[in-house]
Amino acid sequence: MKVGIIMGSKSDWPTMKNAADMLDRFQIAYETTVVSAHRTPQLLADYATSAAARGLKVIIAGAGGAAHLPGMAAAFTSLPVLGVPVQSKALKGLDSLLSIVQMPKGVAVGTLAIGEAGATNAGLLAAQILATSDAELMSKIDAFRKEQTDTVLAQPNPAEE
Amino acid sequence: MKVGIIMGSKSDWPTMKNAADMLDRFQIAYETTVVSAHRTPQLLADYATSAAARGLKVIIAGAGGAAHLPGMAAAFTSLPVLGVPVQSKALKGLDSLLSIVQMPKGVAVGTLAIGEAGATNAGLLAAQILATSDAELMSKIDAFRKEQTDTVLAQPNPAEE
Amino acid sequence: MKVGIIMGSKSDWPTMKNAADMLDRFQIAYETTVVSAHRTPQLLADYATSAAARGLKVIIAGAGGAAHLPGMAAAFTSLPVLGVPVQSKALKGLDSLLSIVQMPKGVAVGTLAIGEAGATNAGLLAAQILATSDAELMSKIDAFRKEQTDTVLAQPNPAEE
Amino acid sequence: MKVGIIMGSKSDWPTMKNAADMLDRFQIAYETTVVSAHRTPQLLADYATSAAARGLKVIIAGAGGAAHLPGMAAAFTSLPVLGVPVQSKALKGLDSLLSIVQMPKGVAVGTLAIGEAGATNAGLLAAQILATSDAELMSKIDAFRKEQTDTVLAQPNPAEE
Amino acid sequence: MKVGIIMGSKSDWPTMKNAADMLDRFQIAYETTVVSAHRTPQLLADYATSAAARGLKVIIAGAGGAAHLPGMAAAFTSLPVLGVPVQSKALKGLDSLLSIVQMPKGVAVGTLAIGEAGATNAGLLAAQILATSDAELMSKIDAFRKEQTDTVLAQPNPAEE
Amino acid sequence: MKVGIIMGSKSDWPTMKNAADMLDRFQIAYETTVVSAHRTPQLLADYATSAAARGLKVIIAGAGGAAHLPGMAAAFTSLPVLGVPVQSKALKGLDSLLSIVQMPKGVAVGTLAIGEAGATNAGLLAAQILATSDAELMSKIDAFRKEQTDTVLAQPNPAEE
Amino acid sequence: MKVGIIMGSKSDWPTMKNAADMLDRFQIAYETTVVSAHRTPQLLADYATSAAARGLKVIIAGAGGAAHLPGMAAAFTSLPVLGVPVQSKALKGLDSLLSIVQMPKGVAVGTLAIGEAGATNAGLLAAQILATSDAELMSKIDAFRKEQTDTVLAQPNPAEE
Amino acid sequence: MKVGIIMGSKSDWPTMKNAADMLDRFQIAYETTVVSAHRTPQLLADYATSAAARGLKVIIAGAGGAAHLPGMAAAFTSLPVLGVPVQSKALKGLDSLLSIVQMPKGVAVGTLAIGEAGATNAGLLAAQILATSDAELMSKIDAFRKEQTDTVLAQPNPAEE
Repeated sequence: MKVGIIMGSKSDWPTMKNAADMLDRFQIAYETTVVSAHRTPQLLADYATSAAARGLKVIIAGAGGAAHLPGMAAAFTSLPVLGVPVQSKALKGLDSLLSIVQMPKGVAVGTLAIGEAGATNAGLLAAQILATSDAELMSKIDAFRKEQTDTVLAQPNPAEE
Repeated sequence: MKVGIIMGSKSDWPTMKNAADMLDRFQIAYETTVVSAHRTPQLLADYATSAAARGLKVIIAGAGGAAHLPGMAAAFTSLPVLGVPVQSKALKGLDSLLSIVQMPKGVAVGTLAIGEAGATNAGLLAAQILATSDAELMSKIDAFRKEQTDTVLAQPNPAEE
Repeated sequence: MKVGIIMGSKSDWPTMKNAADMLDRFQIAYETTVVSAHRTPQLLADYATSAAARGLKVIIAGAGGAAHLPGMAAAFTSLPVLGVPVQSKALKGLDSLLSIVQMPKGVAVGTLAIGEAGATNAGLLAAQILATSDAELMSKIDAFRKEQTDTVLAQPNPAEE
Repeated sequence: MKVGIIMGSKSDWPTMKNAADMLDRFQIAYETTVVSAHRTPQLLADYATSAAARGLKVIIAGAGGAAHLPGMAAAFTSLPVLGVPVQSKALKGLDSLLSIVQMPKGVAVGTLAIGEAGATNAGLLAAQILATSDAELMSKIDAFRKEQTDTVLAQPNPAEE
Repeated sequence: MKVGIIMGSKSDWPTMKNAADMLDRFQIAYETTVVSAHRTPQLLADYATSAAARGLKVIIAGAGGAAHLPGMAAAFTSLPVLGVPVQSKALKGLDSLLSIVQMPKGVAVGTLAIGEAGATNAGLLAAQILATSDAELMSKIDAFRKEQTDTVLAQPNPAEE
Repeated sequence: MKVGIIMGSKSDWPTMKNAADMLDRFQIAYETTVVSAHRTPQLLADYATSAAARGLKVIIAGAGGAAHLPGMAAAFTSLPVLGVPVQSKALKGLDSLLSIVQMPKGVAVGTLAIGEAGATNAGLLAAQILATSDAELMSKIDAFRKEQTDTVLAQPNPAEE
Repeated sequence: MKVGIIMGSKSDWPTMKNAADMLDRFQIAYETTVVSAHRTPQLLADYATSAAARGLKVIIAGAGGAAHLPGMAAAFTSLPVLGVPVQSKALKGLDSLLSIVQMPKGVAVGTLAIGEAGATNAGLLAAQILATSDAELMSKIDAFRKEQTDTVLAQPNPAEE
Repeated sequence: MKVGIIMGSKSDWPTMKNAADMLDRFQIAYETTVVSAHRTPQLLADYATSAAARGLKVIIAGAGGAAHLPGMAAAFTSLPVLGVPVQSKALKGLDSLLSIVQMPKGVAVGTLAIGEAGATNAGLLAAQILATSDAELMSKIDAFRKEQTDTVLAQPNPAEE
């Protein structure tokens, strides 16, 4: 296991699955767990405290509303923590975003966009982090990026079917 | 000790002192402690977990920015937790407010206004909560409320010095 | 009757019913009444003024838009008042939230999240308040919280059906 | 007395004085009173209920934060009520504005801009309302408007001292 | 004709019809016209300039987005102008609201809530304004308000069908 | 005169002067005039209606709050109109921005940033527009852009005095 | 080719097609290309750098979310660039708008409204820009504007089918 | 050089210096450069394209307003990019935050808080990223975190000097 993907509720899975999909694409081993900052705070403490010893390198945490999971995971570990603001019902994820990104000095969360794009990019950024010491993985990311570029270049005309 | 007043940073004290002042007015015993959700998460867990056993009846928690302290305190105790959004530098406390108030089903934080007014009212609401089983305290609150009303009634003309 | 649940309009009931459901779970007696701050201001004054004498211990008030009901109920009583911002059509409850939470010094409303989660938690916080002087109720709340934790722990894998 | 100017706190006077100044300019009789929706709710009820009988034609109400004064005044009278959102400390009057303007169907508040401009215009709109049945006053308003136009036209070059 | 109801586009009619319905209820004569500040600015100038001479007493103007109609109508007349922020597609009427309410000193628009509630209340406030010099109309408004109150009082239990 | 710079109030000049300064740099002739949409609507109509005939090619309009000047100028002319949202006191120009940019289909305003940067860029964009048919001016703009680039490149180290 | 219409993704086409339709109406030649600032940054650099030499006079760029396309196109060319904030899923285009309009001094983007209205108006403003040196095109725009006005004037009654 | 710290303007240095200070604390080699997305786009392309080959492992990019630097740096490299929203004048960094964090699928920026706290944490997160393959650095971070915790624990009483 290189990456731990945690989320505050099972209902966050359709969003967070996008992070898992990106890790799959790069054949990076990961685990997915529901860890609620508010309903299972001790599990959160245990999970984050033991993460480095269990071999995890990066934690991806997604939550919505008063989204405390990413910041509290970061409070219990020195591993890099990436936060995904899940789109909330009333405020559309603005609450999730501010709750995750506005961390005080000394405990950091690298925050991605609200919703699916953010989850996808959390998987990608986790891969980029791992690739800082894994040249083969970096090549895979370069290839992914090139493929992505080529896909756009191949269909330059938006009006075409 | 009936009430625990906690805050994420010593810099929150000028705001949170207003909660203490209100409790002083009603002669309610309280303690004040810096407990940072992000820098001292274990202290937070210990503080909140042991709060009921130590005789606390209400917790008042103030924090700014990605303000996780009130919600995480609530995650570790069944005591009523009141949250005070401290005014933050860039977003003026809107981030603090949303981080505190938008809690998910099952773990509640009674949130007050941003800044000093919110801290004052957290002290008042803590007193009101204690007064649900303390008729003498309820009388004191009634008297405070009446005095407050009389102060306004005594100076009806805003243009007067 | 321990708790009075009031709301500005019958259309708020689908939201506020969640507060009632939570009180039912703890077998706390309550009453539900439509009290409009704007259309029935005298009823509001009478309701709140007489609430303590009628034996109520906590008032839960839900309203949307220019949501004046919680704050005005608090203006007429010394009982703890909990406010639920009902999700509004255009501004999605941001107006309701700010109208309820930004109370001035001296009259407090403990505000919960926008919408159903907030209503559920208003019921829970009312129970927590009553439990400050009712050890049996506190045990029930502890049990509810433990059950809630166990439910999350029992289904750790979000990807599983 | 034709117009009642009320405000939630003496600290609102520097803002609300602008409404009084505008009425002075049109020689419209008015009274100014501190009436706090939250600290003196009974005074508010009495003030608004008796306003029409006392001869008032328009009420101007200014308040900040969870600004309930204009809406609650409107709840107790059929006179036209104009609301002035006083600029608040943290949220700069956005909370005041939404609390005043987002009234539900059936009880109206004519809302002006945040702060001094809004107070000035509340005085002007009150005059315009009275002028719907007072041709002489309407002439004065026309003259004021013309004078205002001429002042701008007289100094067309912004770069000139 | 006592009241002119204007709107920026025919698509605003479903909202603005609520203002007309309220005037109908009080048997107040009105006219409804599409006047676009941006597409028919000369019509706007002519309409507003001639409004008083044509006997209008109040103008109700509804518009969405960069909603300039109410403020520009007010620029061309000394009659009271009431503004209705029509709910816009992307920003849900927040743009309409700020464009209408934040008028500078010297030209006033009495602004109502976003959407249908605001349109209804614009009709009501227009009636209240006319009633400042029409005791019979004031009685009708009092009766409407009482009926509205009675309707709420008649169905106090929100849980009842 | 190639460019007309108009603004709602003399107090907008410190902001709008930045547009004039940019035009000066490119030796483009311009005029500056206070034209208030609300206080001098007829002047606005006349100014914009006659602008093309007077030889103007572009209009730059700055205003704050309920900023109707740019949109209304655009309503009276087919010339390109550029809008500058002047920073307002309470809402810091968010109201100005939304009032200017959210124009309906059929009447366009090219909107720049809030405040001085926006005014500077309005001058620049006006020059760019004129340069679409003036190769010499385009060369001057290219040179300005190159100089701007070189200035940054000449001081690559932010820590250096 | 006079105008280049670029957009960050093929999914922006339903919005951006409105710009093309407006250009079609004025028989202005244009090209449409998907150019992603993030996925094809070199294409963006090449496209914008070569635009003037290829004979383009105006660039219209649409993008959503962290919408960097318009500003980066402007960074690589001295041609006028018009930006269209595409409505985003979570934040409804507020993020797109701020990302496009808040450009620093020295590189300008003329920003239009969020969504379809903004795209339509980008086409219109591009035509207005070209018309500053093309009297025949200016006549067409005048005619379009007159027709638009006449359409509104022809159906003054909003209540009519 | 392990880390490249870039910023859009020399005026961002007082903010971004906090990132450098954190890297200094961990004795991580870094370079600091002004790279403006808008004024030096080619430098940005060159800088980011060559970053990996020059041995950089992480890029920290700070910018304000329409903050395109972090996202565009990420567009030109597969290295992890961390974004710092610099507090802007009018909108207080909300524009900077949304411009940086709301990246589309496929190009990621790990975003930190607005202003100094965000810059400090960008330095910390860069260190955490490097520590995923550097046990000694991870020990230093653990020590820093422990020291930070101890500092809070050493001064538990906020009221004490």
